[in-house]
Amino acid sequence: MTLPQLSLVCIGFGHVGQRLARLLTEIAPRLDFGWRLVAIGTRRHGSVVDPRGIDVTRALALIDSGQPLDRLDPSPRQRSGLDVIRQAARDLADEAADGRLVCVESTVLNIDDGEPALSHVRAALEAQMHVVTVNKGPAAFACDEIEAMAEAVNRACLFEGAVMDGVPVFNLVRETLPAVRVDGFRGVINTTSNFVLSALERGQAFDDAVREMQARGIAEADPSLDIDGWDAAAKTAALVNVLMGGSVTPHQVVRTGIRQVTAADIGEARARGRRIRLVASAARHGGAIEARVEPELLTPDDPLAGLADTENALYLRTDLLGDIGIVQREGNLTQTAYAVVSDLSRIAVRLRDETRR
Amino acid sequence: MTLPQLSLVCIGFGHVGQRLARLLTEIAPRLDFGWRLVAIGTRRHGSVVDPRGIDVTRALALIDSGQPLDRLDPSPRQRSGLDVIRQAARDLADEAADGRLVCVESTVLNIDDGEPALSHVRAALEAQMHVVTVNKGPAAFACDEIEAMAEAVNRACLFEGAVMDGVPVFNLVRETLPAVRVDGFRGVINTTSNFVLSALERGQAFDDAVREMQARGIAEADPSLDIDGWDAAAKTAALVNVLMGGSVTPHQVVRTGIRQVTAADIGEARARGRRIRLVASAARHGGAIEARVEPELLTPDDPLAGLADTENALYLRTDLLGDIGIVQREGNLTQTAYAVVSDLSRIAVRLRDETRR
Repeated sequence: MTLPQLSLVCIGFGHVGQRLARLLTEIAPRLDFGWRLVAIGTRRHGSVVDPRGIDVTRALALIDSGQPLDRLDPSPRQRSGLDVIRQAARDLADEAADGRLVCVESTVLNIDDGEPALSHVRAALEAQMHVVTVNKGPAAFACDEIEAMAEAVNRACLFEGAVMDGVPVFNLVRETLPAVRVDGFRGVINTTSNFVLSALERGQAFDDAVREMQARGIAEADPSLDIDGWDAAAKTAALVNVLMGGSVTPHQVVRTGIRQVTAADIGEARARGRRIRLVASAARHGGAIEARVEPELLTPDDPLAGLADTENALYLRTDLLGDIGIVQREGNLTQTAYAVVSDLSRIAVRLRDETRR
Repeated sequence: MTLPQLSLVCIGFGHVGQRLARLLTEIAPRLDFGWRLVAIGTRRHGSVVDPRGIDVTRALALIDSGQPLDRLDPSPRQRSGLDVIRQAARDLADEAADGRLVCVESTVLNIDDGEPALSHVRAALEAQMHVVTVNKGPAAFACDEIEAMAEAVNRACLFEGAVMDGVPVFNLVRETLPAVRVDGFRGVINTTSNFVLSALERGQAFDDAVREMQARGIAEADPSLDIDGWDAAAKTAALVNVLMGGSVTPHQVVRTGIRQVTAADIGEARARGRRIRLVASAARHGGAIEARVEPELLTPDDPLAGLADTENALYLRTDLLGDIGIVQREGNLTQTAYAVVSDLSRIAVRLRDETRR
């Protein structure tokens, strides 16, 4: 059987995009799809659109050596992410029409409005591209709108990487829990905050821990988004909207970060056999859904208490299965890049099913 | 869109089968398939085959009042499980040919040879039925053979309920972790043993704890299968065969049960801040897979250490995502019955995809 061939338009090509390009190359023999890069749009490394396909090794080498991607472009020019999407849609119109053009979105999130991801996703769907994003913006700010758009153009919009990297959360519920109602959740879903709290427990300094997360490419570009709970709030909104059918933005999540948590607080908690963790949660109260992100003092028997460093976990409250949890013991760039791979694989399955009909 | 209509042939109709019949009725409006019962074969409650459909309420009432199911049969007779499968296949030949006949297998496992489940599954597939089983036998004793048979007749053979009830394990890997290689696992996957160990920690007596699990319908009919680690060994073999491509039987799993664990052992462990849990594990060593079930002394930071009572968890060692865990905080009959529902839903999705082609 011939594998579906996907043409990828990467909008944003930082840590995640570069790791994705390498990972797709490394595991190519196991993939249920073929792929090539046809466009890359970045804020800092220029852009390239080439319908004949981009040499991935050369693109990565240019970035490593600080040179612009424009050097690979047949007719280089200054372009925004939106410009790249629109040009790729024109230059690869047949592939867009066949559903083989996929926009992979991994830009930096603006927590005020979910941009620029939201505009990128809208433009890509309008251009009949499938969308895979690791961005929390679309599901956190415009879940219903984006899902309706995707359905109207018969394209997928997937975002497994928005929460807990490649460990399945959205796919877990959609693909493996049919007929189950999610009534709430509790989780530790911001890696940087959890690493900082764990570092404080070890006697390390707050700022050193943040810097370590930045060096590993895990902290947000602006780490205050992690520390002040915004990243967790955006993920919480995405989870509420997608898994519970809610309609909240990150700004409607009751939010307290870990900036005020001191080494003394941690020491006091430990002396009482407890742990402080930044907990994201949601629960239905009558018709309303209350969503919160805040440091909680946890007893040792709480399944979130034992999560250290880069561990994440999400416990879903369900009506048929009670509480079930999914746990990620290591969070790193490969895992985030894998989230994109798993979503691309879903698109490949969909293409194969459509071709068979 | 009309929903696929499934006709169910239930072989075994004890705690799980009865709970399934009730659950399917309770959540009918949410299901993506319609269903009716057309045959039930049991060892203790007689049997019934009726292509016009069996009145579920009356069947459950007969069992509750200790009367044989034969009273619902148009032409009652003595039948084995195999007889029921074969008669249903004859009487509902059109539905078998259309892929709408499903054998739901939930008999008691014979740990020596995986029977009678294995023969039921073979007969059902031969008769062009899909198979859903909560039984560990088929995957633990004849995984490759059964999968090849199912493929040859273009039918599904699913067994999500064989490990951790309805919490996705097999579906998790197959549906949400494409291209990921599972290199091993560690888990607490026998509920009765874990409940007994937790009870000993509370100072309860071993035998009382076993009786409580029997009363709740969770312990195997012969609880020594739980206590001596056979149930966990069968699940371990199933996991090794399905997730790791191995080929082991429960008898090849290195196995120690919890019969020798005393209250004194538990007390000593607790005094050292540790916990004893019955751990099922597997790992690759070169080309071979070593599989074990044995009580382990766990430090508090072990993610399995905190599992109490009816909690189960399985941590998969993967190459792309590191260790990822799935946790079940409550195990009960509804969860086991839900496993069948989730597998029936997979069959419905498959039928819908086939119809569209």
